[in-house]
Amino acid sequence: MSQPRIEPRTLPGFRDYLPAAMIPRERLIETAKRVYRSYGFTPIDTPALEYLDVLTGKGSAETDKQLYKFQDAGERWVGMRFDLTVPLARFVAQHAAELGTPWKRYHIASVWRGERPQRGRFREFMQCDFDTIGTLAVTADVETVLVINDLFSSLGFDAFTIRLNNRLVLNGLLEKLELADRAVPVLRALDKLAKIGADKVVDEMVETSGAAAEQAREVLKLAVLQGTNDEVLSQVDALVRGSAKGEEGVSKLRTVLAAASAAGVPPRRLKLDVSIARGLDYYTGTIYETFLDALPSIGSVCSGGRYDNLAGLFTSQQLPGIGASLGLDRLLDAMQALYLIEKVSTPAPVFVVYFVESRLHDYLQLAARVRAAGLGCELYPEAKKIGKQLQYADKRGFTVALIAGDDELAAGTVQLKHLKTGESRTVPTSGDALEQALLEAAR
Amino acid sequence: MSQPRIEPRTLPGFRDYLPAAMIPRERLIETAKRVYRSYGFTPIDTPALEYLDVLTGKGSAETDKQLYKFQDAGERWVGMRFDLTVPLARFVAQHAAELGTPWKRYHIASVWRGERPQRGRFREFMQCDFDTIGTLAVTADVETVLVINDLFSSLGFDAFTIRLNNRLVLNGLLEKLELADRAVPVLRALDKLAKIGADKVVDEMVETSGAAAEQAREVLKLAVLQGTNDEVLSQVDALVRGSAKGEEGVSKLRTVLAAASAAGVPPRRLKLDVSIARGLDYYTGTIYETFLDALPSIGSVCSGGRYDNLAGLFTSQQLPGIGASLGLDRLLDAMQALYLIEKVSTPAPVFVVYFVESRLHDYLQLAARVRAAGLGCELYPEAKKIGKQLQYADKRGFTVALIAGDDELAAGTVQLKHLKTGESRTVPTSGDALEQALLEAAR
Repeated sequence: MSQPRIEPRTLPGFRDYLPAAMIPRERLIETAKRVYRSYGFTPIDTPALEYLDVLTGKGSAETDKQLYKFQDAGERWVGMRFDLTVPLARFVAQHAAELGTPWKRYHIASVWRGERPQRGRFREFMQCDFDTIGTLAVTADVETVLVINDLFSSLGFDAFTIRLNNRLVLNGLLEKLELADRAVPVLRALDKLAKIGADKVVDEMVETSGAAAEQAREVLKLAVLQGTNDEVLSQVDALVRGSAKGEEGVSKLRTVLAAASAAGVPPRRLKLDVSIARGLDYYTGTIYETFLDALPSIGSVCSGGRYDNLAGLFTSQQLPGIGASLGLDRLLDAMQALYLIEKVSTPAPVFVVYFVESRLHDYLQLAARVRAAGLGCELYPEAKKIGKQLQYADKRGFTVALIAGDDELAAGTVQLKHLKTGESRTVPTSGDALEQALLEAAR
Repeated sequence: MSQPRIEPRTLPGFRDYLPAAMIPRERLIETAKRVYRSYGFTPIDTPALEYLDVLTGKGSAETDKQLYKFQDAGERWVGMRFDLTVPLARFVAQHAAELGTPWKRYHIASVWRGERPQRGRFREFMQCDFDTIGTLAVTADVETVLVINDLFSSLGFDAFTIRLNNRLVLNGLLEKLELADRAVPVLRALDKLAKIGADKVVDEMVETSGAAAEQAREVLKLAVLQGTNDEVLSQVDALVRGSAKGEEGVSKLRTVLAAASAAGVPPRRLKLDVSIARGLDYYTGTIYETFLDALPSIGSVCSGGRYDNLAGLFTSQQLPGIGASLGLDRLLDAMQALYLIEKVSTPAPVFVVYFVESRLHDYLQLAARVRAAGLGCELYPEAKKIGKQLQYADKRGFTVALIAGDDELAAGTVQLKHLKTGESRTVPTSGDALEQALLEAAR
């Protein structure tokens, strides 16, 4: 080497995924894809780089500041996508005629934000979104619940809660109280309920929105309702009665809850929560949050809602939609905390020891046979000491090792060793005894 | 809208993937992952952005010029990865202790190059690599052939050819001719054989490498050998005899060919081709190219080889390796040209017509049942005219539609309509007749 060595390192806020982290990650993504597809959501992808004006069009000071942007070799200003929603809006506007409506897509891809790095916040992370575009039908609102339910069930969770609200409820109440034009400060104050308590929320609401204290207390009622879904619905109904908007919200919630149950979602997983707001101006109808009952403190692991107009920045076509986003990193952290992730560094369960150097063909054939049975299988590449090979297999997390020397191969047998228990037994290679034993052991 | 609209568009050289393009793309990637995993290759991922010195360390003027680079908000010079090999080298050097050797990884991810856009060349494209690091054992050379064979078999190809060579053969011959230090100009001339013919290659070799005409003709012999693999091997053997390097190359090729056949690769798919070189200084041992017999003109769709030292830029640890890369875009183009890709815009085969508005629960239950049978199923969200819904289903490429009105639902039946033939029949919803009929229809 004539040149000095370069220090191998990653940028602050960026991370490598080693196999033990990447294997559960890929599994999670594949489960999400399988569930999305099972409802007819179609995959798309968009470029990592977009024209800068496409990304800054939304004009949020926060995201604009965090944007990775630069001039390319052609002196165009470009930026790296910071979410999948802006690219979706651009995509739908650009290809509207070809896509048609209703149109359902999922998009699982990396996004970049130059945030100040801190624990659990990264500058590169993956989003995992699904949306139904171009329909106002409540069927899509119901289906979003079904997808979330299937998603977490497929991931092995039983105890989780999908919290539902509809923005029309609050908007209706505000309308009724003649506070409709002051929704933003009202919501901002309401959002602090858990932190500062009811009295201070009322104070702030009065101060920032100009509402009367009585009005503020009326709004607050909505946030503290308790009881079963039916009980809460009746109370909400009473609060908003007289506002067409509010009544529509109540009716939509009723429909979504009933239909989701009819379609098989256990009612215990559905919780009406009229205190959730999820952003101030984006969502306009049903909204969703999902909590793991064992770890509610980590926050929502799948959130979304209905919006009126996806792509107004790019087209005159009014495109309502509804969707949600799976919080991939948060969910993986949770699964780790709940010991739902087995720490292995190999995607294959079966390890074949390379025992007798001259028997390469036999080992290759043995490994091919294991693969033909549908099981991943790694053959150690060198005829090293068996202890070293088994150490390697243990460290990677293989489930089973197959060991055969000249004697076994001549006798038509193989040693099958369970790597966790250390237990070993002889299996004949004729018939399908080996396949049976492996499928059982790898289960 | 108060602000003017932004034109929805993508940057030159970048592209959106619409569902019809993305569905086969995802399928291809999933097949590759399944095959890689079945051999114990583990997934990894690395950041899209790296410190600029990590990426420019290799110092290739070509890639440096094409690099997307800029200063981030922290005034660090950063670049977007232009391949997966440099990040792999950095990754292995950084995590060597944790990874251990031998170590097998696959990495499927986007890379960026600011090339001049032209037909079939994009500034963002996906690479799909697998490598075995840290072993010189020929087992890994054999396994690379097996992976390629499984990959294309799994994708539905029967007629393809894996062309094999070993760089030691040519290096041995050059050593024997005392031209070892002039390998680069010799190879560069040899590379033009198909274009300019033997005589001109000899002329150029003499001129640029300083070889005698006789020596040049001796080198050329290697490139024009013909016959079966055995015949070519014997001729190569005779040409390099006396050079230890050359003889090792011949022996390795013999071992790889025999072991790959023993492990189940049909011999017709293996072709010794001592004319392939694949880059001038990177590869040092076995090299691979893969051609589709029906479309040889598109070039190799999976290529790679053995190298001596992966990460010399970043670490003093000598890390030999071997791997190959699936040419995803090229292969998808080929599959399209060969009509191996069905043009559909939905990942789900079954479509449920929303017929009677008040029957939403029934349709949701029907769709849930289809999904429980393992089949993707989309329910149209609105109770529009049936003709419109079927038009929609046709356009997307669903295979089967399920239609049920009040009468069918009361009678416990459903109409099953094959969307390609238009053929329709009544199926009872009791028992598993519906599941049977759907599984058959969707096959």
